[in-house]
Amino acid sequence: MDVGVLGATGMVGQQFVARLAAHPWFRVVWLAASERSEGKAYADAAPWRLAMPMPDAVRGIPVEACAPGRGPRVVFSALDAAAADHLEGEFAAAGHIVLSNARSHRMDPLVPLLVPEINADHLALVPEQQRAKRWAGAIVTNPNCAVAVLATTLAPLRQFGLKTVQVTTLQAVSGAGYPGVPSLDILGNVIPYIGGGEEDKIERETVKILGEAGGRAVHSALVSAQVTRVPVIDGHSMTVSVALDDGPTADAVVDALRAFRGRPQAERLPSAPDPPVVVHSEPHRPQPRLDVDLGGGMTVSVGRVRPCPVASFKFFALGHNTVRGAAGGSILNAEMMHVDGLL
Amino acid sequence: MDVGVLGATGMVGQQFVARLAAHPWFRVVWLAASERSEGKAYADAAPWRLAMPMPDAVRGIPVEACAPGRGPRVVFSALDAAAADHLEGEFAAAGHIVLSNARSHRMDPLVPLLVPEINADHLALVPEQQRAKRWAGAIVTNPNCAVAVLATTLAPLRQFGLKTVQVTTLQAVSGAGYPGVPSLDILGNVIPYIGGGEEDKIERETVKILGEAGGRAVHSALVSAQVTRVPVIDGHSMTVSVALDDGPTADAVVDALRAFRGRPQAERLPSAPDPPVVVHSEPHRPQPRLDVDLGGGMTVSVGRVRPCPVASFKFFALGHNTVRGAAGGSILNAEMMHVDGLL
Amino acid sequence: MDVGVLGATGMVGQQFVARLAAHPWFRVVWLAASERSEGKAYADAAPWRLAMPMPDAVRGIPVEACAPGRGPRVVFSALDAAAADHLEGEFAAAGHIVLSNARSHRMDPLVPLLVPEINADHLALVPEQQRAKRWAGAIVTNPNCAVAVLATTLAPLRQFGLKTVQVTTLQAVSGAGYPGVPSLDILGNVIPYIGGGEEDKIERETVKILGEAGGRAVHSALVSAQVTRVPVIDGHSMTVSVALDDGPTADAVVDALRAFRGRPQAERLPSAPDPPVVVHSEPHRPQPRLDVDLGGGMTVSVGRVRPCPVASFKFFALGHNTVRGAAGGSILNAEMMHVDGLL
Amino acid sequence: MDVGVLGATGMVGQQFVARLAAHPWFRVVWLAASERSEGKAYADAAPWRLAMPMPDAVRGIPVEACAPGRGPRVVFSALDAAAADHLEGEFAAAGHIVLSNARSHRMDPLVPLLVPEINADHLALVPEQQRAKRWAGAIVTNPNCAVAVLATTLAPLRQFGLKTVQVTTLQAVSGAGYPGVPSLDILGNVIPYIGGGEEDKIERETVKILGEAGGRAVHSALVSAQVTRVPVIDGHSMTVSVALDDGPTADAVVDALRAFRGRPQAERLPSAPDPPVVVHSEPHRPQPRLDVDLGGGMTVSVGRVRPCPVASFKFFALGHNTVRGAAGGSILNAEMMHVDGLL
Repeated sequence: MDVGVLGATGMVGQQFVARLAAHPWFRVVWLAASERSEGKAYADAAPWRLAMPMPDAVRGIPVEACAPGRGPRVVFSALDAAAADHLEGEFAAAGHIVLSNARSHRMDPLVPLLVPEINADHLALVPEQQRAKRWAGAIVTNPNCAVAVLATTLAPLRQFGLKTVQVTTLQAVSGAGYPGVPSLDILGNVIPYIGGGEEDKIERETVKILGEAGGRAVHSALVSAQVTRVPVIDGHSMTVSVALDDGPTADAVVDALRAFRGRPQAERLPSAPDPPVVVHSEPHRPQPRLDVDLGGGMTVSVGRVRPCPVASFKFFALGHNTVRGAAGGSILNAEMMHVDGLL
Repeated sequence: MDVGVLGATGMVGQQFVARLAAHPWFRVVWLAASERSEGKAYADAAPWRLAMPMPDAVRGIPVEACAPGRGPRVVFSALDAAAADHLEGEFAAAGHIVLSNARSHRMDPLVPLLVPEINADHLALVPEQQRAKRWAGAIVTNPNCAVAVLATTLAPLRQFGLKTVQVTTLQAVSGAGYPGVPSLDILGNVIPYIGGGEEDKIERETVKILGEAGGRAVHSALVSAQVTRVPVIDGHSMTVSVALDDGPTADAVVDALRAFRGRPQAERLPSAPDPPVVVHSEPHRPQPRLDVDLGGGMTVSVGRVRPCPVASFKFFALGHNTVRGAAGGSILNAEMMHVDGLL
Repeated sequence: MDVGVLGATGMVGQQFVARLAAHPWFRVVWLAASERSEGKAYADAAPWRLAMPMPDAVRGIPVEACAPGRGPRVVFSALDAAAADHLEGEFAAAGHIVLSNARSHRMDPLVPLLVPEINADHLALVPEQQRAKRWAGAIVTNPNCAVAVLATTLAPLRQFGLKTVQVTTLQAVSGAGYPGVPSLDILGNVIPYIGGGEEDKIERETVKILGEAGGRAVHSALVSAQVTRVPVIDGHSMTVSVALDDGPTADAVVDALRAFRGRPQAERLPSAPDPPVVVHSEPHRPQPRLDVDLGGGMTVSVGRVRPCPVASFKFFALGHNTVRGAAGGSILNAEMMHVDGLL
Repeated sequence: MDVGVLGATGMVGQQFVARLAAHPWFRVVWLAASERSEGKAYADAAPWRLAMPMPDAVRGIPVEACAPGRGPRVVFSALDAAAADHLEGEFAAAGHIVLSNARSHRMDPLVPLLVPEINADHLALVPEQQRAKRWAGAIVTNPNCAVAVLATTLAPLRQFGLKTVQVTTLQAVSGAGYPGVPSLDILGNVIPYIGGGEEDKIERETVKILGEAGGRAVHSALVSAQVTRVPVIDGHSMTVSVALDDGPTADAVVDALRAFRGRPQAERLPSAPDPPVVVHSEPHRPQPRLDVDLGGGMTVSVGRVRPCPVASFKFFALGHNTVRGAAGGSILNAEMMHVDGLL
C-alpha cells in the first residue's frame, strides 16, 4: 500500500521515513514538506539526523508541497501543531486518512486517540467523525509521547478500579525535536518544566485513551502529572503511583501487567510487540540505556512494582518516546486500521 | 573551639574539612581515619577530590586512628554506617559530642535527627540520651541527603494539616560517594533504584524530623518515596505532592514557604541561610546547575507550586546533597548546639 | 570609571555585566543592545542564564540602542561578528575605546589582539590605528577563546625557539553561546567540527599574539589545529605538541611555564591571576570540572609536560573559555590600558 | 566449531558471548572464569550488563575454572592482564589456540598482533612461535582498542611513506571496563590521562601491526600519542596528523583510505566489514553516537581529511572500542585463522 508523509523533512518525519523503509505493508511514495523544500530531492531537503542511514528508496523522491488531494490516500502526519491545526483537516476533507502525531486534534471527541492495545474500539468514532465533519477521509491520532507509555501501564489496572494516578516523568531530549533542548540547559542538569502544556496533555489524554464505550466517555481516574527533562537521548522514564478501588496483591498487579494483550497482538500486526508490557524483576531496571529498544522500541517496560504507603501501588515505567510515543505508534495505528478495513 | 573529624579522608570527611576551613567558630585540629592512614600527614592520606584546594592548615596534620577519648570534645563523624554503628557510641561514651552524618543512630528515639530550622527543640533529647545511655558525651545526627531537602519544604506546611506526601527524587551521583556510581551505569541514563534502603529512609526519617513534642513523637503524615539516580553531579531534585487537611490557596502555600524561618535564622548562625527556603517564580527553576549553590549550598529551592488534581498541591524542590544534606547540615547542627550551650 | 556594554543582553554581554558588577575600577552605567530590547529595563530585556543572580545595580538600567557617541567612552563589545563588523568601527570613530570580544577586527594589522601577559607592547599599535583610521577612539580585541588559552602556554616557550605547534582542542559547549549546541548533538558524543573558521582562527590568531616588535610581525611558528566539541559546560581543554629549536629539558620547560609573568602581574591588575600559568603535577590534572575556576577563571592550567617522540614536548592545557577566553580577557585588557593611560 | 571463553563473566567476556551467539561458524560450549564462579550456571555467575539480553543458549552452561587442557581447542581470552600473564601461555602449552584480548603477549616478537585487514601475513609467526616455545597450541592477540582504530587508518597510508603520526584520543568509558570510570570523575568532564601505559601501547603496538616482512620488523614511523577520557559510552575518537614522505594530494589520501581492503574482505569473513574504512564527507562526521555501529561496529570511520600546516595531512577517526577494538577484533582473527587452516 502506498503511503505519504506530511512534514517529512523534520525529525519526526525522518523517523516515519526510517521506520517505514522496511515495512511489509506500507511503501513511502510521497513526501511533503514546507515550501522551502519543494522540488528538492528528499536527500537534499532533509537534514538527516538519525544514526540509521537514509533509506536509498527515498533519496531521490522529490519533496512536494503539503497540498490536500495530492499524494496517496494514507498519509502519516509529522506536522507541528501550528501547521497541523488546519492542514490535517483539509487533508481529511480531501479524502486522506491522516495518521497524526500532532496534538491538534487529539482531544476532539470525534477523533480517536489511539493506542490500539488499549482502545482499538475507539476506531468506531471514524464513521461518526466522517459524517459529522463531512469528510471523505479521517483523522486518527496517537498520543503525547509520555502518555503512550503511561496509558499502556494503566490499561491493565482498570480492572482493579483505577481511581487516581500520580506520575512524575523524566523525559528524554529527543522528545523536544531538533534543535530542541540547548545543551547548556541540560548537560548535568534537570529542568522541572516542559512547555506546550505537557502536564495538561498527560492529565487529559490519558483518561481519553482509557475511556470505554467506544471512546464516547473518558475514564473517571484523576491524573496528576509532574514533568521533568533529564539528560537522556531516548526514552521517557516515569514514576507512577496509583490508587485502586479493589485491593489486589502486588503479585496480582504484576500478573495483570504481564497478561495484558490487545488486538495488535491478537492480529499479529507487524509493529506489535508481544507482550506489549514487560515487567522487569531486577530492582535497578528498566533503564533507558539498556531497555529502551526492547521490542524494536515498541515495548513498554515496568519495574519495581510495590505497595505505596499513600496510594495503593507504585512502579517505574519506561518507553521509547520517538518510537512507541511517536512514529512507531502512528504506524501501529495504521496497521490496526488496515486489518479493520479502514484504510 | 577545636574540633575533630572522624573518617576524615573519605569524600564526606573532605567536605567537612573544606567547609570548616574558614569557619568563624570551629577549628579543625584533629583528623582520624582508618588504620591504613594512621601516621600519615593528611595531605598524603586523603585522595583529595574537591575542586577547592585542600586547606593549607590541615595538610600537615598527622592522621590518627579513630580512638575514643582522643581528640577534642566535638567531633564530626563522616564514618560510613558499618564503622559508625559501634564507633560513634564509643566516642559518645568517652565524652565526645558526635555530630554524625551516618545513618546508624538516626532512628534511635533518644537521638535527635536534627534540621535546626525545623526541630531545634529535639535537642531536648540530649540530656535524656545521656542519662539513658550513661554517656558523658552525646550523638546528634543529620538526616539522609534527600530528607534534609524534603523535610525543609514540608515543615512550613504542617500548619495546613499535612496528611500525605508523595515524593519522587532525581538524585545526584555525589550522593553515592567515591568511586560511587560507575559512569557506564549513569551517562545518558536514569537508574530507578538506590540501595541501602533509600526510600525507607525518606519515608521514616521525614516524619521523625517533623515530629513535635520535643522529638518524642513522629508526625502523622504518610510519606511515599520513589527514588531515581540521574546524571547530575551535585543537587538532589524532587517532585513533591502533598495532601493538606485545610484548604489553603496556592498563594498561602507560597507565603508559608517564603515566611519560614527557624532558630538558626533567629540566632544568625554562621551557616544559616536566610531565608532557608527560596521559592522561585520562573517555571523552569530551580535547576541543579543554576541553583544548587544558593546560600552557599544551604538554601532549599522550591518552584512550580501549583494545585494537584489528586492531592492538594504539588511542587518541585532542590537542595545541595553534600552541603545541606551532609557536611553543611552537621556543621549547622553544631552551631545550633553551641548557642544552646550543648557543646 | 563609567563603562558600557554593547550587546549587553546576550550570553557574553551577561558575562561582562556579571564580572563587572564587583569591579574595583569600572562601573557599568550604560547597556546597549538590539532594537528589540530598546527602552526595556535590563532585568526585562536580558534572559539571564548565569548561575550568579543578576546584579541589582543593573536591573533597572534602561537598555539603549547601539548608537555610536552615546554612552561612556569605554565600551565592552559583546556584539556578534555580523553586528561588530560595522558597529565597532563606528563607535571607535565616534571616540569610544572599544574592548571587543568579536572576531571582526582581530586580524586587522593595526588592531592589537591582546593577551596582556604576552603582548602588552602591542598596545603601541593604538596611536597608529587612530592616525591611520582617523578615529578619536580605538578598537582593542581579545582572541578566540581557545587561542587565549593556547597562546598563554606558548608564550613562555618562545625563548626555546618555537617552531611548530600541533593542537587538538576539546571545547566546551558554552563556547557556542545560547542556544548554541543542541543537546541531541552532544550528549554522550563528540563533534569533530566547529563552524565559523575555528581552526583557521587558532592557526592565525596565535601567531599574531606571539608576534614581537610591538605587534608589527607575526611569530614564525607553524600552528596546526584540530578542534572538537565535547559535552563539557565550561573549559576548553587541549593537547599540545611543540617542536623547539633548542633542546631544553622537560624540567626547563616546566620551569619556564611556572616562571612566566607579564605586565598584568607586575602592575597587580585586579583581574590578573598570579601566576598566569599553573603547572599541575598529578598526571590526571588539569580537568575542566576541578580546575576551570582557578584564579577566578583567569588562570591557564597545564599538565603532563613530557617529551614527544615526534616533536619536542607535549602537554595538556585547560582554560576557562568564557572568562579568560572572553569577558574576563577583555576586562583585563581594559585594566592594562587603564594603567597605560589609554582609556 | 566449538569454542570457549576465558574470563567469560566479565565485561569483555560478556561481549564475546554476545557476539558469538549468532556466529555462523563458532559455537560457545565452554565458559571459564575465576573460582568464585565455578560450578554456577552462567546466568547466575555473570552480572550481565549489555543491552542485548543474555543468549538463551549459554544461560545454563556451568562455569568452569580456567584449567588448561579442559574445554575446546579454540578459546577466546577475556582475561585481565594479571591472569593472562601466565594462564594464556599455559593454555597454549596445553594445545589451545588462544585468541587473546589481553595486553600480556602483544609485544612478544613471536606472537602475532593481528588486525587481519592489515597484517594477516603475521600469522606466519604461529609455527615459529610453536617451535620456539614448544607449544602444541598458540597465542594470537588483538591490539589495544585505540590502536585497532588508528592502525586501520594508517595502513593504507604506508604506500605514501608514513614518517610520523601524532594522535590525540578521546576515549569512551566502556574502554575501562566495569565498574571502570567513576561518574564523579567524568560527567561533564575530560580526564587527560589513562593508566596502564595507554600512550605507550599506542606508540608501540601501532608500529608492530604496521610492520611488514611477516611481522619480523616493526614499521619505521614515529608515533606520539596523547590520550584523554571523555563522557562517551562507546567509540574511541581521535585526531590524527601524519607526515608522509611522498606528496600525495588530499584526494589521493581519501582514495587510498576508500580503496583499502584486506584478506578478510577477499575471503568474505563473516565479521569483516566491507569496506573496512568509511570516509565521511560531511564535515561534522563521524560522531560516536551516529557512526560507532557502522558495519556492526567493525567499520572504522574517517572524516575531515585535509592538509596539515605542520605535518602532511590531518583527519579525524572513530571506531568501536569494544567491538573492533576488543571482542569483534578477536573473532575476526579467529575467522582469518580458520580459513588459513590454523584452528
